[in-house]
Amino acid sequence: MSRRDLAHAPLIEAANGRTPSRTPVWFMRQAGRSLPEYRKAREGIPMLDSCFMPELLAEITLQPVRRHDVDAAILFSDIVVPLKAAGVDVAIVPGKGPVVASPVRGRDDVEKLPLLEDTVDEVADGIRIILGELTDTQALIGFVGAPFTLASYLVEGGPSKNHEKTKAMMHAEPETWHALMRRLVPTITAFLRMQVEAGIDAMQLFDSWAGFLTERDYREFVLPYSAEILASVAGEIPRIHFGVATGELLGAMSEAGSEVMGVDWRVPLDVAASRFATPKVLQGNLDPALLFAGPDVVRAEVARIKGEAARAISTGDATGHIFNLGHGVLPTTDPDAVTEAVRIIHEEQ
Amino acid sequence: MSRRDLAHAPLIEAANGRTPSRTPVWFMRQAGRSLPEYRKAREGIPMLDSCFMPELLAEITLQPVRRHDVDAAILFSDIVVPLKAAGVDVAIVPGKGPVVASPVRGRDDVEKLPLLEDTVDEVADGIRIILGELTDTQALIGFVGAPFTLASYLVEGGPSKNHEKTKAMMHAEPETWHALMRRLVPTITAFLRMQVEAGIDAMQLFDSWAGFLTERDYREFVLPYSAEILASVAGEIPRIHFGVATGELLGAMSEAGSEVMGVDWRVPLDVAASRFATPKVLQGNLDPALLFAGPDVVRAEVARIKGEAARAISTGDATGHIFNLGHGVLPTTDPDAVTEAVRIIHEEQ
Repeated sequence: MSRRDLAHAPLIEAANGRTPSRTPVWFMRQAGRSLPEYRKAREGIPMLDSCFMPELLAEITLQPVRRHDVDAAILFSDIVVPLKAAGVDVAIVPGKGPVVASPVRGRDDVEKLPLLEDTVDEVADGIRIILGELTDTQALIGFVGAPFTLASYLVEGGPSKNHEKTKAMMHAEPETWHALMRRLVPTITAFLRMQVEAGIDAMQLFDSWAGFLTERDYREFVLPYSAEILASVAGEIPRIHFGVATGELLGAMSEAGSEVMGVDWRVPLDVAASRFATPKVLQGNLDPALLFAGPDVVRAEVARIKGEAARAISTGDATGHIFNLGHGVLPTTDPDAVTEAVRIIHEEQ
Repeated sequence: MSRRDLAHAPLIEAANGRTPSRTPVWFMRQAGRSLPEYRKAREGIPMLDSCFMPELLAEITLQPVRRHDVDAAILFSDIVVPLKAAGVDVAIVPGKGPVVASPVRGRDDVEKLPLLEDTVDEVADGIRIILGELTDTQALIGFVGAPFTLASYLVEGGPSKNHEKTKAMMHAEPETWHALMRRLVPTITAFLRMQVEAGIDAMQLFDSWAGFLTERDYREFVLPYSAEILASVAGEIPRIHFGVATGELLGAMSEAGSEVMGVDWRVPLDVAASRFATPKVLQGNLDPALLFAGPDVVRAEVARIKGEAARAISTGDATGHIFNLGHGVLPTTDPDAVTEAVRIIHEEQ
C-alpha cells in the first residue's frame, strides 16, 4: 500500500518536529468505557473478541474522534491481542484484566510459547475501515504492547500489583528471562508490521508496567527488546513510547529510539525533557483525575503544561509537543469534560 | 513516663547520625500476613478490632522481632485507627482495605468529622506490653498515617487507584481541602502524642499515597500538614517519613522535618540523597519482590544498596543508613526468606 499523505495533520507535523497549525491532542483510552456509545457497541461482546471484529473495532476507534474532535485515533486493541492471535490461551476478565491459562515459569514454557505467524487480517481490515473514515488531518496511531508488560502478564498469569514472579525470574533466572523476551519480540514486531502494512500513520509502544522497574533492571532486562521493536519501523512512521510512573526511566526509555516520549503526569514536561538522552517530541501530561475538577481547573493546568512544553522547546531539550493525558481516561470520566478539555487545548494561548 | 535508654540500639544510633554496631534493619509490614503465627493469632478477628486489643497487637508487633532478629518492632496498627478511635464509621474490608461509611464530599462533612479526644488506652497499653518485651537494642517504632493518605480514604470512601475525587477537591475546592487537612492534623497528632507518652522509641509517618501527587500539589496541599505533625514530636524521638513511588517528591518531603527519609526501591539511595533539601539518614530500599528471587540475589542487592548508602554518606548527602525494603513485605513472601535477608544485611561487608 502507499501511506496516506498527512503532511498537514497536526499530530504528524508535531511528531516530525515541525510546527503544527494547532496543538495536536489525543487521549490514551479515549476509546472505551467513558463513552456510552462504546458501552452500547460492546454490549454482550467479550473485550478480546471485540479486538478481532473489524467493523466493531473500527467503530470503537472512531467514536472519540467524532465526539471529541481529537487529532488522532488510537487503534482499539489490547496488549495481549498478538498473543491471542498467536494461539496463547488468554482471556480478558472483566474487572480484573488479562488472565493467562498456562503462565510461563521456566525455559520449557518459553520454548512452547507460540509465535505470531499470520497477519491478523481482522485487525488489518479494521485499520482499513478506520482509514477510510478519517480526514487527512486526523492520524491513526497503531497500538503495540511492549515486551516487558506482555512478559509480566505471561509470567504472573495475570495483572500483578508487585510483579514478584517476573522480577524473581529476571534476577534468579536471567537466561530464561532473556529467552522469553527474545521469543516475544518477533510476535510483537509481526503485529506492528501488519499495522504498518495496513496503513497506520504513527504508533505508540505501551509499556504500562515499566515504571515498576529500577533503571538498572530496565536497561538490562527490557531496553534492548523495546529498542528492537521500535527499530523495526524506523523511518516509516513516527514512534511514541510511553509508560506510567516512569520518571526514573525517562533517560533510559528515551534511548530506545522513539521520536516522541509520553510522560506521565508526575513529571513536569520541561523536567522530563531535561532527562532525555537526546531531544524528543514531548507527549502529555494532564493528570486524568483533573478531568473531574471542572473546566477552570483544566484551563489552568493546560496553560501550565503548554508553558512547560514551550520552555523545553525553547531550551532545545524538546522538539515539539503533542498534548495528551499523563495516563488513560478514567472509566467514570464525564465524556463532556473530555470534549471540553480538547476544546481548551485547541484554543490559542 | 521516662523514655527507655536506647543509646546502644543500632536503629536509634543510626537515626541520630551516629555509627551503629551493625547495620540496623526492619521491614515495613514485617508484622502481618507473611507470618503463619500472625494468621493464627488474627484468626476470626477483624483487622481493625485487632488494632484495639492490647495483648493481641503487642503479640503481632513482637512476632517478627522474635522470628527475624530485626532491630526494630513497628507498632501493629493501621492508618485509619485514629479515625476509628475518634468515632468515624470505618471498617477494613478483607481484600479491599479501609471503607468509610460516609465519605467527606463538602465543607459540612469536614465540620462534622469527629476529632480524637481520648487517649486510645488500648493502643497505649499495647505499647507498654511491647516495651516490656523488647531488649534495649531493639527499638519500637510508632505508627502514624499521614493526613493526605487519610484524607484520600475519607474523600474517596475507600482505597482508590486514581484518587480522582481527592484531586478534584484539592483543585476545585481548595478551601474545603485545606479545612479537611486542618481538621485531621489534631487527631493524628493526638494519636502520635499518645504513642510518645506510652514510650515509643521512634516513629514513622506513612504517606502511602503521596506518590500519586505532583510535587506542586504535594507542596501546596500536603507538605505543611505533614510538617506540622512531625514538628509536634521534634527533639523527642527520631522521625522517619516514607511514601511509595515518591522519587519526584523526595526534595519536598525532606523539607517536612524528619531525621530519616524512607526511599522506595525505584531510586538508588545515593540518587535519593542528592535530592534531599538537607542531609538525612537514609532508610531503604530493597525491592520486596526480590525476596522471591533467592539468597544469592538478595546478597547482591544488599551489597549494592549498602554501597549506594555508603557513597551518599561519604559525599555528605546522607548522615546514616537504616536498612529496609522499598515498600512493605508482600503477603506471599516466604518468612524464611525474610529471616535470611536480615542475616545477610547484618553480615559485615
